[in-house]
Amino acid sequence: MDRDKILLTPGPLTTTLRTKLAMLRDWGSWDSDFNEVTARVRRSLLKIIHAEDTHVVVPLQGSGTFSVEAAVATLVPRDGHVLVLDNGAYCKRAARLTTLMGRRCTIVSFDEAEQVSAQVLDDQLAADASITHVVMIHCETGAGVWNPLPQVAEVCARHRRGLIIDAMSSFGALPIDAREIRFDALVAASGKCLEGVPGMGFVFIRKKVLDRCAGQSQSLAMDLHDQHVYMEKTGQWRFTPPTHVVVALAEAIAQFEEEGGQPARLARYTRNYHALIDGMSRLGFMPFLDPGIQAPIIVTFHAPGDPSYEFKAFYQAARKHGFILYPGKLTQIETFRVGCIGAIGPNEIEQAVHAVALALEEMGIASGEPAING
Amino acid sequence: MDRDKILLTPGPLTTTLRTKLAMLRDWGSWDSDFNEVTARVRRSLLKIIHAEDTHVVVPLQGSGTFSVEAAVATLVPRDGHVLVLDNGAYCKRAARLTTLMGRRCTIVSFDEAEQVSAQVLDDQLAADASITHVVMIHCETGAGVWNPLPQVAEVCARHRRGLIIDAMSSFGALPIDAREIRFDALVAASGKCLEGVPGMGFVFIRKKVLDRCAGQSQSLAMDLHDQHVYMEKTGQWRFTPPTHVVVALAEAIAQFEEEGGQPARLARYTRNYHALIDGMSRLGFMPFLDPGIQAPIIVTFHAPGDPSYEFKAFYQAARKHGFILYPGKLTQIETFRVGCIGAIGPNEIEQAVHAVALALEEMGIASGEPAING
Ligand SMILES: Cc1ncc(COP(=O)(O)O)c(C=O)c1O
Ligand SMILES: Cc1ncc(COP(=O)(O)O)c(C=O)c1O
Repeated sequence: MDRDKILLTPGPLTTTLRTKLAMLRDWGSWDSDFNEVTARVRRSLLKIIHAEDTHVVVPLQGSGTFSVEAAVATLVPRDGHVLVLDNGAYCKRAARLTTLMGRRCTIVSFDEAEQVSAQVLDDQLAADASITHVVMIHCETGAGVWNPLPQVAEVCARHRRGLIIDAMSSFGALPIDAREIRFDALVAASGKCLEGVPGMGFVFIRKKVLDRCAGQSQSLAMDLHDQHVYMEKTGQWRFTPPTHVVVALAEAIAQFEEEGGQPARLARYTRNYHALIDGMSRLGFMPFLDPGIQAPIIVTFHAPGDPSYEFKAFYQAARKHGFILYPGKLTQIETFRVGCIGAIGPNEIEQAVHAVALALEEMGIASGEPAING
Repeated sequence: MDRDKILLTPGPLTTTLRTKLAMLRDWGSWDSDFNEVTARVRRSLLKIIHAEDTHVVVPLQGSGTFSVEAAVATLVPRDGHVLVLDNGAYCKRAARLTTLMGRRCTIVSFDEAEQVSAQVLDDQLAADASITHVVMIHCETGAGVWNPLPQVAEVCARHRRGLIIDAMSSFGALPIDAREIRFDALVAASGKCLEGVPGMGFVFIRKKVLDRCAGQSQSLAMDLHDQHVYMEKTGQWRFTPPTHVVVALAEAIAQFEEEGGQPARLARYTRNYHALIDGMSRLGFMPFLDPGIQAPIIVTFHAPGDPSYEFKAFYQAARKHGFILYPGKLTQIETFRVGCIGAIGPNEIEQAVHAVALALEEMGIASGEPAING
């Protein structure tokens, strides 16, 4: 069998063997041993963003999108009005699920090469008192933009509107401090920067708004209030938890803490990011974003301008050398993405760059330079 | 570290080491290798109930309840009317999620010690033409009743109403043949009789009704039509799949096929069931259900009448000897449950019965005999 390929994607990502080994046991979901794992995970999650005093955290089965949908369904009243700050694919998805579930939704659009603007939000909230909640994506994984969370949170707090943050691809890596930033809900998942395996999300909910959330969700499975109340009472999940995913997350968090928590993780991803940018630049590749708004999570590169380039073939060639790249998610421009996250360091990134160089060579492409300077 | 305890629960259950070892790799969710695993799982699932010609199968992230909710949301039009045949806790849950999502719902109640009645359903459907769909639970895991699927399906077919079957705890063990039984949707999950790990469900949808399902779901994450269309087009899941759970299920299904498929699995569970009934009877325990309607999946026993009995202490005592029992789910009578399913055979069941005997002894209880004969 081949060695495992290195996943340079925004999740599922490469996890440590120690994390995977935790899945070699079976756990009763009703048993106290497992309840302790759940409780430990919840305590650790709260600590990561210093939310012990202000928030609860509610885990939920399913992928990250399930938790985003659950957050909107649980937090926003049926007659609420959501404003989505949109600069990419995951923003559009949040708007779509909000509209589908019957909540009123207004989209404020920005270019996908730019941050969302707290100033524009300020004007919008001043102009429209009917808006009850704002949804923002912390790191818009579509292009990789690091959106200005403190500024957006400040505007929402000043206007006293609820803020729902999709921190799926940033949680654990980019700094978030619940003592300084006011938000009603923040969503993330097991299989991203905490380096667990995919299969569950979790939502931080501000204690002050929790009681108001009772009965708001039109979905039973996604009712985070119900999930929270049951979990507090019994220590258990309402419905069968993905036990192996939960214990893998517990083990991943233990390693996260041993590494030095969020600052250490950000430092490693930043080293990965620099190794990536340096190496790819040497090959002629050009990142899509301005470095000033780029999160060290996932980098979008312009596709090479060479007419022999074609993503599928490029992907297959890099894959043959052991690395899994990610397709671009931009609608207008041909791009591809490379993740900086997962249980990898600059060594793996350098090897990945080398694999990309070999891929270009095999495709007969002299340089990664884009057709038009982006 | 202790040896793993044997889980005598209706899921999560004891899985083989081979199934768990499949989780020791990381998979890119966009990669062709993983897409092949997904495709293989889907093909195998269709074969198990001979649904290749008539149905598609759509996997979904989350626990089994997520798939039940998704089936109702996707299959039932917004102005549809669902009749739930109710003889237990999982029936009530199906009714609750149907009502919550805003679909009209009528509950027809039966005693939890009895099967639901196809005759009563026949009368109801004749009397109420507004009913568009019927929901039934194949094995009502609450007490363990094996409900009369062929009879219910025949009535639904004759009245031309859609049938949605929750086969969560029966799929793979009890016989279901899609060539003989007409249903619009059938729901099951990874962590039950297929002996995978929990974290995903799957829903069979009749091809003839699939097109009509477009746009019916008010949930994005739970829209099975959208999930299906995307998967057919790309081979991928719409949102991050629980990759490790999926590969474990693929490995579990390979073992299921090697064992001899559904007939062999039913035969093993039936042997487990008889070993359980025989052993527990010798200790004085009395099953709650009439054997004629008991599925060999999970058995509800009356609690011992001895005043020293208390479930928590009994559970802990059996646990100390290595076996995880399950609490009762009946509202009126004190009971507990013992599962016959998972990667176990009559040996483990005999050992479990012995552990129960030791537990009684340690609690100073002479016999498992209930207070009032059932
Ligand atoms: C910012 C953001 N939001 C939402 C999601 C959706 O998560 P999932 O694919 O687990 O549903 C992702 C996944 O990468 C993401 O990066
Ligand atoms: C008949 C039936 N339906 C639904 C469920 C719910 O599944 P889950 O706990 O995975 O949400 C179960 C779980 O045991 C079940 O037995």
